[in-house]
Amino acid sequence: MKRIKTLLAIVALVSLAVSCQKADPYGYTIKNNQIVYNTPERPADQQSMLGFAAEPIENVRVGVVGLGDRGTGAIWRMPYQEFATVVALCDLYPDRVERAQKVLEDLGAPRAIHEFSGEEGYKQLCELEDVDLVYLAVPWQLHTPIAVYAMEHGKHVAIEVPAATSIKECWDLVNTSERTRKHCMMLENCCYDFFELNCLNMIQKGLFGEIVHVEGSYCHNLDPYWDNYQGDWRMIYNRAHHGDVYPTHGIGPICQDLNIHRGDKMDVLVAMDSDAFSGQAIADKRYGEGKFEYANGDHTTTTIRTRKGKTILVEHDVVTPRPYSRMYQVVGTKGFANKYPNEGLALGTENLGEVAYDDLDAEQYMGEAERDAIMEAYKHPIISELEEVARKVGGHGGMDFIMDYRLFYCLHYGLPLDQDVYDAAEWSALVELTEVSINHGSMPVVMPDFTRGEWDKTDGLTFATAE
Amino acid sequence: MKRIKTLLAIVALVSLAVSCQKADPYGYTIKNNQIVYNTPERPADQQSMLGFAAEPIENVRVGVVGLGDRGTGAIWRMPYQEFATVVALCDLYPDRVERAQKVLEDLGAPRAIHEFSGEEGYKQLCELEDVDLVYLAVPWQLHTPIAVYAMEHGKHVAIEVPAATSIKECWDLVNTSERTRKHCMMLENCCYDFFELNCLNMIQKGLFGEIVHVEGSYCHNLDPYWDNYQGDWRMIYNRAHHGDVYPTHGIGPICQDLNIHRGDKMDVLVAMDSDAFSGQAIADKRYGEGKFEYANGDHTTTTIRTRKGKTILVEHDVVTPRPYSRMYQVVGTKGFANKYPNEGLALGTENLGEVAYDDLDAEQYMGEAERDAIMEAYKHPIISELEEVARKVGGHGGMDFIMDYRLFYCLHYGLPLDQDVYDAAEWSALVELTEVSINHGSMPVVMPDFTRGEWDKTDGLTFATAE
Repeated sequence: MKRIKTLLAIVALVSLAVSCQKADPYGYTIKNNQIVYNTPERPADQQSMLGFAAEPIENVRVGVVGLGDRGTGAIWRMPYQEFATVVALCDLYPDRVERAQKVLEDLGAPRAIHEFSGEEGYKQLCELEDVDLVYLAVPWQLHTPIAVYAMEHGKHVAIEVPAATSIKECWDLVNTSERTRKHCMMLENCCYDFFELNCLNMIQKGLFGEIVHVEGSYCHNLDPYWDNYQGDWRMIYNRAHHGDVYPTHGIGPICQDLNIHRGDKMDVLVAMDSDAFSGQAIADKRYGEGKFEYANGDHTTTTIRTRKGKTILVEHDVVTPRPYSRMYQVVGTKGFANKYPNEGLALGTENLGEVAYDDLDAEQYMGEAERDAIMEAYKHPIISELEEVARKVGGHGGMDFIMDYRLFYCLHYGLPLDQDVYDAAEWSALVELTEVSINHGSMPVVMPDFTRGEWDKTDGLTFATAE
Repeated sequence: MKRIKTLLAIVALVSLAVSCQKADPYGYTIKNNQIVYNTPERPADQQSMLGFAAEPIENVRVGVVGLGDRGTGAIWRMPYQEFATVVALCDLYPDRVERAQKVLEDLGAPRAIHEFSGEEGYKQLCELEDVDLVYLAVPWQLHTPIAVYAMEHGKHVAIEVPAATSIKECWDLVNTSERTRKHCMMLENCCYDFFELNCLNMIQKGLFGEIVHVEGSYCHNLDPYWDNYQGDWRMIYNRAHHGDVYPTHGIGPICQDLNIHRGDKMDVLVAMDSDAFSGQAIADKRYGEGKFEYANGDHTTTTIRTRKGKTILVEHDVVTPRPYSRMYQVVGTKGFANKYPNEGLALGTENLGEVAYDDLDAEQYMGEAERDAIMEAYKHPIISELEEVARKVGGHGGMDFIMDYRLFYCLHYGLPLDQDVYDAAEWSALVELTEVSINHGSMPVVMPDFTRGEWDKTDGLTFATAE
């Protein structure tokens, strides 16, 4: 009898544990040795944002929230945009707002009409009638709360990377965008870098055959930059979290190459990290020996398998003194490209279309002259159109200008944006998913499907144009 | 009552299944969402081979088994060895034996005394009295059975890569070597390549600080070579198996960098592969559409975490037309090196010892001239001693010669070999472990410990010398 009671108590406890886990629609359960994330049903008052286009906006009135290094950089680029005007500025500190106004003045642009500061200044900005788009360059943890507030108040949003730091936040963005019918674009600038865009064009034209495997990373020693983040937020975040906390520069361009949620989807993820050898040393130097335990492993490696059987590798390392690398590597059945340490291209002869280079062999990197000629011949239309002005305006070599341009161009003409809310959610999702995998000893994670079953409804990635 | 019977039957079945799994001392069980490999106790009649040195052998009498491309290549190099003589030859086909004899003659070396052929010729060779070492270049699946037979008959063995294709075979090598007190060295030639050895020397001298993460791979399009394997064995193996079936060129040098089983150990492994896009197309072209299902994914990615918190990345791709790469990448807290696509080195100024280059920055690749100067200043002693003759004799640029030389040198002087049986087992273990992880949806695998708890008894990797 006692045994039966004990057994019943165990059953009850297990049921309770299971039901507690199930209670979180954005959480996960462990089934068949996998961490399985829930994909909650779409509420009745929401519709898919796939292919969504808003009403055209003649001139996009922009409110910029967050005027640190990155936000101020955006201000420097804005006056060159033909379809947008900065009308509102907001930062925690009023002097930063004034600094941004000066930048606008220096560039001959009108000063922003509205100025806000303080912890809640963003709310006033989001509540304005004469703002169409809120452009966010705030600390990571504020991205989603402010973006949701902006969409709730009828604004489109553009959010710096990563757009969200948890799966719950990813769903908040998706649900809010779907319900409010407002664009939610993550500002993943690396998708607009020249090499990546030209490779994407070649991939879409079939030069690489079937894409088998892709790689991306963020390997960038942040040692000179740790002091630049207001209130030490970036170091604090890294100190507190395992996982690839900054995955989108690496995963963005390669997900575009694979048509993720436009014919394929990321299914299973596994992450692993090293100890925080450098990280702990940096924290000890910064705060005093042993003051804080630094969680984030010096090197984090993530592998992902897609529904169509492709694999993705993503790496993160911001604390060792290694040369900058976003990897960007594409392995296809007929071609290969890698961007770091130098731009390499290897293609077979049979697939080059109008460009004939008899001496090319996909097993050899082609020479620089041949590579440049092919890059020229297969230049992405967006690059062809914008590279001259992009190089002049700059921002990471021009890609930031192109990113902004495409955002405002599509809003101006009422076209779908290049990056939709599902991209933002999928790419940012790695922040939590990698941490959870690592915290479970590198268990495989079945990823949530932010499109809720519609990942194969769109036939490949396209860049909308007005013509 | 019926329910209780059913319940009892289920309990009985589960117990049976568990006990069946436990019955295999070299197998695994699934515990806490991990695949946990057993580490069987060492039988009483065996001792550790760590640091083992055999009696010196004045001139090592070598019997070579397997005279295909790789074995014949070894014959071409042998006459240049001062401490070894080929005394016996064996191949399935007598004409290959005669071809090898001709090579010896052409090089002015004596013909081998003994000749064997046929399926069981190796047994006669292993049973000879006047052979000290059996040198194996046979198909993968024959490596372990023949090596075990040779050790049982009192011979040291040197085995081409991978030494084993299953965990059971890895243990067979370890157990036989431990019991017979015979050397069992895997011929991992890439450990003797110049860049890798020089980097190892710099790592051991502290130039890279703490090593955080390492990478290695075998990315080599085998399209021109599939017909070279007797009876199609390599294609058949790839057709039948998921996983990194050829991991040792990638993992060998980087395990040496991490002092694996000489202060650290590989703990947990996770593998993932793409579909066989190219692989299936090759099989279809080779055998007819749909004749065989090709299992091995075009791209296999493996991540491993060590006990000391370091991470390892290994890739395998033998079917896409990408440029050859063994990756070889070392990420340290103070330095970085990568070998492919070009030899890159990035070191901070404070750690260069006698070499002072004020303009170096670990975040930048140093120029070629500086790199070459540092490589010269920190040249590995083995390279310094042997590079001239190695480059002359050749064999993958000289590394094959150095590998053979070190084997015979250590046997001649009665020294421990550079690569012991635990290296052979650990590196080859990836063949099965990656397949099992993949077959379980990329579940983490707790790796067996072939040293049985003695992985931290040796203080770092050393290359024994007679002086």
